[in-house]
Amino acid sequence: MDTILRVRCNGTGIPALTTHSIGTYAGLGGRGMTSKVICAEVPADCHPLGPENKLVFAPGLMSGTAAATSGRLSVGCKSPLTGTIKEANAGGTAAQALAKLGYAAIIFEGEAKGDALYRLVIDEKGAKVEPADEYRMLPNYALRDKVQEEFGDKVSLISIGTAGEMRMSNSTIAVTDPEFRPTRHAGRGGVGAVMGSKGFKCIIVNAEKASIRKPALPEAFKAANKKFVEGLKSHPVTGTGLPAFGTNILTNILNEAGGYPSRNFSTGRFEGAGSISGEAQAELERARGGNPTHGCHKGCVIKCSGIYVDKEGNYLTKQPEYETVWSHGGNCGIDDLDAIAMMDRLDDDYGLDTIEMGATIGVAMEAGVIPFGDKEGAINLIHQVGKGTPLGRILGAGTAVTAKCYGLERAPVVKNQAMPAYDPRAVKGIGVTYATTTQGADHTAGYAVATNILSVGGHVNPLGSEGQAELSRSLQIATAALDATGYCLFIAFAILDQSETFDAMVDSINAMYDLKLTGGDVVALGQDILRMEREFNKAAGFGPAHDRLPRYFTREPLAPHGVVFDVPEAELDSVYNF
Amino acid sequence: MDTILRVRCNGTGIPALTTHSIGTYAGLGGRGMTSKVICAEVPADCHPLGPENKLVFAPGLMSGTAAATSGRLSVGCKSPLTGTIKEANAGGTAAQALAKLGYAAIIFEGEAKGDALYRLVIDEKGAKVEPADEYRMLPNYALRDKVQEEFGDKVSLISIGTAGEMRMSNSTIAVTDPEFRPTRHAGRGGVGAVMGSKGFKCIIVNAEKASIRKPALPEAFKAANKKFVEGLKSHPVTGTGLPAFGTNILTNILNEAGGYPSRNFSTGRFEGAGSISGEAQAELERARGGNPTHGCHKGCVIKCSGIYVDKEGNYLTKQPEYETVWSHGGNCGIDDLDAIAMMDRLDDDYGLDTIEMGATIGVAMEAGVIPFGDKEGAINLIHQVGKGTPLGRILGAGTAVTAKCYGLERAPVVKNQAMPAYDPRAVKGIGVTYATTTQGADHTAGYAVATNILSVGGHVNPLGSEGQAELSRSLQIATAALDATGYCLFIAFAILDQSETFDAMVDSINAMYDLKLTGGDVVALGQDILRMEREFNKAAGFGPAHDRLPRYFTREPLAPHGVVFDVPEAELDSVYNF
Repeated sequence: MDTILRVRCNGTGIPALTTHSIGTYAGLGGRGMTSKVICAEVPADCHPLGPENKLVFAPGLMSGTAAATSGRLSVGCKSPLTGTIKEANAGGTAAQALAKLGYAAIIFEGEAKGDALYRLVIDEKGAKVEPADEYRMLPNYALRDKVQEEFGDKVSLISIGTAGEMRMSNSTIAVTDPEFRPTRHAGRGGVGAVMGSKGFKCIIVNAEKASIRKPALPEAFKAANKKFVEGLKSHPVTGTGLPAFGTNILTNILNEAGGYPSRNFSTGRFEGAGSISGEAQAELERARGGNPTHGCHKGCVIKCSGIYVDKEGNYLTKQPEYETVWSHGGNCGIDDLDAIAMMDRLDDDYGLDTIEMGATIGVAMEAGVIPFGDKEGAINLIHQVGKGTPLGRILGAGTAVTAKCYGLERAPVVKNQAMPAYDPRAVKGIGVTYATTTQGADHTAGYAVATNILSVGGHVNPLGSEGQAELSRSLQIATAALDATGYCLFIAFAILDQSETFDAMVDSINAMYDLKLTGGDVVALGQDILRMEREFNKAAGFGPAHDRLPRYFTREPLAPHGVVFDVPEAELDSVYNF
Repeated sequence: MDTILRVRCNGTGIPALTTHSIGTYAGLGGRGMTSKVICAEVPADCHPLGPENKLVFAPGLMSGTAAATSGRLSVGCKSPLTGTIKEANAGGTAAQALAKLGYAAIIFEGEAKGDALYRLVIDEKGAKVEPADEYRMLPNYALRDKVQEEFGDKVSLISIGTAGEMRMSNSTIAVTDPEFRPTRHAGRGGVGAVMGSKGFKCIIVNAEKASIRKPALPEAFKAANKKFVEGLKSHPVTGTGLPAFGTNILTNILNEAGGYPSRNFSTGRFEGAGSISGEAQAELERARGGNPTHGCHKGCVIKCSGIYVDKEGNYLTKQPEYETVWSHGGNCGIDDLDAIAMMDRLDDDYGLDTIEMGATIGVAMEAGVIPFGDKEGAINLIHQVGKGTPLGRILGAGTAVTAKCYGLERAPVVKNQAMPAYDPRAVKGIGVTYATTTQGADHTAGYAVATNILSVGGHVNPLGSEGQAELSRSLQIATAALDATGYCLFIAFAILDQSETFDAMVDSINAMYDLKLTGGDVVALGQDILRMEREFNKAAGFGPAHDRLPRYFTREPLAPHGVVFDVPEAELDSVYNF
């Protein structure tokens, strides 16, 4: 994994490919690689859709090896949604395929002019760019069908839907799962629009003839990975909760905690939560012949994913995540799993981030475009986006723009990115993360919910302001490091609670690369990534005034606890003191 | 002029009125007053449409006196368009009426909840708030008709059109002219949306029984004002050019200079400029029985305004300004004065800033919504905005949002506000003003065109980068001071060139208030206002990275001169060194 592939889009003519040795980027993977390339090569003040921005794909350091649950693919750029640096990562099979083929990064540069659309095809013989005008405005599933006809279903597909082609600020990059379904997405921050601005519809990666990456110290690796797997399987979250119910196990938990943002963040409980909970979802899937326990890539031992089938038992979409069920469910006053699953399918198909899309619909509901609870209306709104009608152009530009177009204050965003499924007033640690992460509001950047609500890695009272900045700081650092490895963030539950599992992870990396990293080195890696990202943002114009929640979260109390967000600004400004 | 009227909107029920003595705001007028109130009373991080923002109306220090050309009304708030502090000022009759009634400021506070709409009625007996639901979604001209039925045409009307009611980021506050037409607008920055967010449709000011404000030293005042008027009448711009042709005299001049931004700032000359020039416009008006020489308020001796009549000789709109003719004309590839006049009428009627609206249509044309040159299409787009269709919601949110919704880099904006009718690549002094003013891209904040192109106040080569920062600095300071006086900015042509006219202006102020201000005091006043505004913006999150033009202006050369914007960033950052 020591090759960098550069794809230079010069506006007219077929984009040029060059391959490079990894050089100064040696030792970097995942978010460590994407953020380093963006910081080193992209002017912070450039337009995200202009020729100076770059789009970087990087498998994690452990991707393509036998390390369990290490199939994450990082996608980095300057974000069209937030204007900050962005790293969005996805599961699916592509990271392993790219890593096995030896690619440490693929970097798209320049910009497309005119209408020509291209695809990048990579296999063991090399890479080539080919015209792909016949893919124009295909949603991801139809594109998948066409690619499957030509390449079979053993390749990996990385693609944008119609939203990315239309350069919408809400647009994802989809990655296929083991069944060649475009269900895993680098979702946040509009990375699909950047791919669209480079004129690329998809990347097809054929690693069938490539071998798994060999560790430097095979025996040590095998032993460490075995201990690591045991740790994942023995922890109640990664070994039991997530496999059985997926992330949607959180619906009842957050609702009970009064931190479930309902009807555009107007209250912390949703009366319909029970009918869209993970428990209800898993039962429905089993009853219909779906599957609540499925891995999004080979080698995952957590298997939080699942298969959602319709009333006739036919595949509809992957099991919607907690965030998706919330954003299209409680946040919109909708308590119907089939409607939510249909929206998940449409989001995947058009290439839309489910969190952003659901938050946007919530704002549109508050604006009176459709009423809260209108599930047919909500489904229709997603079609509007996917087809690019004027209303769809508003919604596809994201939650903040939608609120702006309708003259509303109540846009639940930080740095223009929609908050996920945890109300920051009732789960204050995650509020600190929303406010201060380099990525705009993002739960995965420092998942304080673990400690605030699930008591993983200790416990910090979710309703108090004390200790939240420190908690968020530690988690943001740990996450940045994890995002560099290719390991799925969900291993965090086990490694935060079980020191032997953390050690097994570090030992696995050491055995892979013949290194002697310590836990302290992992922390230092995370700190380096965050510092670098924050410098980029600073140069792009972000400062303390942007590390804030919208003012109404400090003004409007949230039922049932009657709490506002009251972590002092000085605490927010202390998060990067390391 | 020592009363402050506060209008407190509490969400439900009729807003409460309180009157206060001027207190700590004594000695302030116009922009000096509005910016001081905003800086002192509004949290910089508030949402522009939320309850913490305030909307301030303030006549200038000389408004309501016999001082010539002193009828400007300042409107201040945190801007929904830019997120910065905002002062937009308008001509018309309202500043004089308010000043004669003794009001130094009217301050709207709080926010409206629910649908109720109100009006504020002010006369010599006092002020009252009344329900005004029957005005809902009336355009300004229809509102004017209804108000005229009830109050006659001798009152002043300050109002929002449908755009302000819909809280669009492009929405103005209209002020009636001497013929009770809603043609003078506090145009920039979406001030109408803030009025809409407070639940007020209009202010009706009846000053028929009020007297002109008396100077402290009547004889000295009379003598100074006489000299001042002579100065205005003898200067070629204020005495000849503006009265004869209005501001549209600039079309041929800027086009000749290669700084006329055509078809969304893609080139610096427009082949149809001649047919929409001020010369052609004045000739057409005269031929049809219109009037190219008209004052927007009593006591104006420049009379740059005019009356545009249709082919049948019926009033259509006021004579469109240069900026309007450019934005809807050359910037959209349209060379038809009647179409432009119709758009001007519609902008005034719906309450839209003509600069922002035209720049937005230019972006929509580049996005392919309609083709360049499509005048019927452009007129239709304005109707979409005024009616609030989804497409109209996009366009009404301004140029930057429109570009964002359509995934375009080429949005000619600074701090989200559209650039006016001078390409910053070919008129670099105005580029410095666009980049650095506290207001977002705004030509009136430091009109370097005067010196770059018209050789007023000296000459600085428009195509070079030397001296532009210094020029912009001086003009921004002078303008901030002028905006506090109520004098129209157009007196600047005369006072920059003729020291005796500048002295006469200062003497007029001194005689009015029995002061001994010097020219240095005027400069200090301007500096104080700018410093205060800049501090507000800093607290709102703006820094050097925001004092930049969009990157494509530094990358794409502008024909015919083949120039890019190349004033060094260090020079831009030096503008506030005073």
